[in-house]
Parts: sequence; structure tokens; C-alpha cells
Amino acid sequence: MRVLGIDPGSTRTGFGVLDEDGGREPTLVGAGVIQAGRGEMPARLARILAGLEQVLQEFRPAEVAMEEVFHARNARSALVLGQARGVALAAAGRAGLPVHEYAPSRIKQTVTGHGAADKESVRRVLELCLGEAPAAPDASDAVAIALCHLRWRGAGKARGE
Amino acid sequence: MRVLGIDPGSTRTGFGVLDEDGGREPTLVGAGVIQAGRGEMPARLARILAGLEQVLQEFRPAEVAMEEVFHARNARSALVLGQARGVALAAAGRAGLPVHEYAPSRIKQTVTGHGAADKESVRRVLELCLGEAPAAPDASDAVAIALCHLRWRGAGKARGE
Repeated sequence: MRVLGIDPGSTRTGFGVLDEDGGREPTLVGAGVIQAGRGEMPARLARILAGLEQVLQEFRPAEVAMEEVFHARNARSALVLGQARGVALAAAGRAGLPVHEYAPSRIKQTVTGHGAADKESVRRVLELCLGEAPAAPDASDAVAIALCHLRWRGAGKARGE
Repeated sequence: MRVLGIDPGSTRTGFGVLDEDGGREPTLVGAGVIQAGRGEMPARLARILAGLEQVLQEFRPAEVAMEEVFHARNARSALVLGQARGVALAAAGRAGLPVHEYAPSRIKQTVTGHGAADKESVRRVLELCLGEAPAAPDASDAVAIALCHLRWRGAGKARGE
């Protein structure tokens, strides 16, 4: 089972790809950051779309996981975040992939055991679990999202869901 | 000069294409509504992306106009609106087109003379100016956005901008 975690942002969009083979610990297959640049928003979002299409084609994941957004600072930042998210969701939808969403606190809780863990703690736990973790925070966050999905997916299967 | 107006929405995305040839009144070249359906968001956004790519390929506009969003009801609705907007901006960006944004009140003011005009008044003015107007509100709104852009563009040119 291959999962692509995406952490969309209008400046940088992180991605992380994990493989899980039976009961073993997942393997980090790839991770990185799509740089959207500093130009006009249409060109930035087009770069994110092209970058994600390339990632989907290269890694061919079976499922996609993203952070769920409930609370944005304000309507303005929600709109800007929504724009990058929309591009990521459309790329997944075009590839025919289901997108699973998890609240930020649930991702941290699942990965580190603490719902309020900071980015560095998340990264350290990823290093312990996977043997490596990307240095870029956006890529590391995306790997954490993918790992969270694999954990819950496994838990669901164990319960016979 | 051909302008594509887009009114993005996660259920229905309206579009309208206007041609302007010198000083004459603009001509309505095409308009319609992309139905995103009622399924999961990734599939809906993928349909909007595919629909807009088809519109861009069929009509080959030189510029794109969209409504500017300052105030959403709340962060949640801003996020959902942002997702559809992001797809529209990415489609325009991929086609290499500039996107011009206008506040809703400015669109109504420019088209009807009243910043608080209702949708039906906008539609009636479009019928007067263009000889026809699409019946679907989302398509009619998109035509109004395109017309607003042509008016301001013309005004800018007259001022030597």
C-alpha cells in the first residue's frame, strides 16, 4: 500500500510517499517540496498542479492523505489556503484517488503520542520510525500525514472495517 | 479582445466569453455552467478543472476575469470557495493567462450603474447590452464579470494605461 501525504500551501507544497508492506514499519519512498515561487497566484497554483501531477505519475500512490482544516486564522487566510488545497484535491481527483483527511491534532497524536507536539518532535519520531525524515518542514509534515493515515488505516483493518 | 469571465463554485462554476472588436458593444461568444456534481470534493474539483480546461481550449481567451473575494461568511465557507477558486486560477495560470479581479460591488456598479443591483437586474442589463444573456445565474454572473473587465480595460486604454 502506497500513500501520498500532501501539505498544500500557496508558497510551498510538501509531499511525502510511504510504502507499507504487511505488518512491517512503513518505508519512506520519496518526499519533497514543490516551490510555487513568488509570482502571481495563477502561475503559482499552476506550478503546484504540475508538481503534484508529476509526483502522482512518478510514485503512483493508491491513496492520498491531507490535513483537515477546521480553523483558519480568518476568512482571508482560509481563502488563500483553500486555493492551494483545491489544486491538490483536484490533482488527486483527476488521478481517481480517494483523499483521507485528518485533523492536525490527530496527526500529531497518532505520530508522536502528543496532540500538541511541535514540528521538531514530529520530525524526530519520523526519523525513529522510518530511519530517516526529510529536513524541509513542509515535506516532513506531509510524511507525518501519510504515516498517520497508514496507522489509522491499519487500525481500521484490524477492527474489520 | 476575448475575455473569459469565471464564477467559480464547488457545485456549479459559471463561465462567460465576450469578444470586443474596437469601439462596438461586446458580443457574447459563449457561456455555460460546469456542473461539479454532488460526489466527493476531489472528483468535483477535478470536473471543474477539466471543464475549464475545455473552455480555455475551445474559446482561447486572451484574458481572464474573476470576482475578488474579500468577505466570506466565515472561515469554513472561505475555505470551500477558495478550493474552487484555486482550481480556476490554476487553469488560467497553466494557460499562461493573466487573471483580473474585481470586487462584486464594482462589477454590479460597472454593469448596471448600481453597486447593490440584484442578479435579475444584472441579467436584464446584459440582455440590453449584448442582445442576449444566459438564463443560468452562474453563467450570467460570469458574463457580467467579463463585461466589467472589458469596460475597465477600455477605460484604462482611454486614459493611456
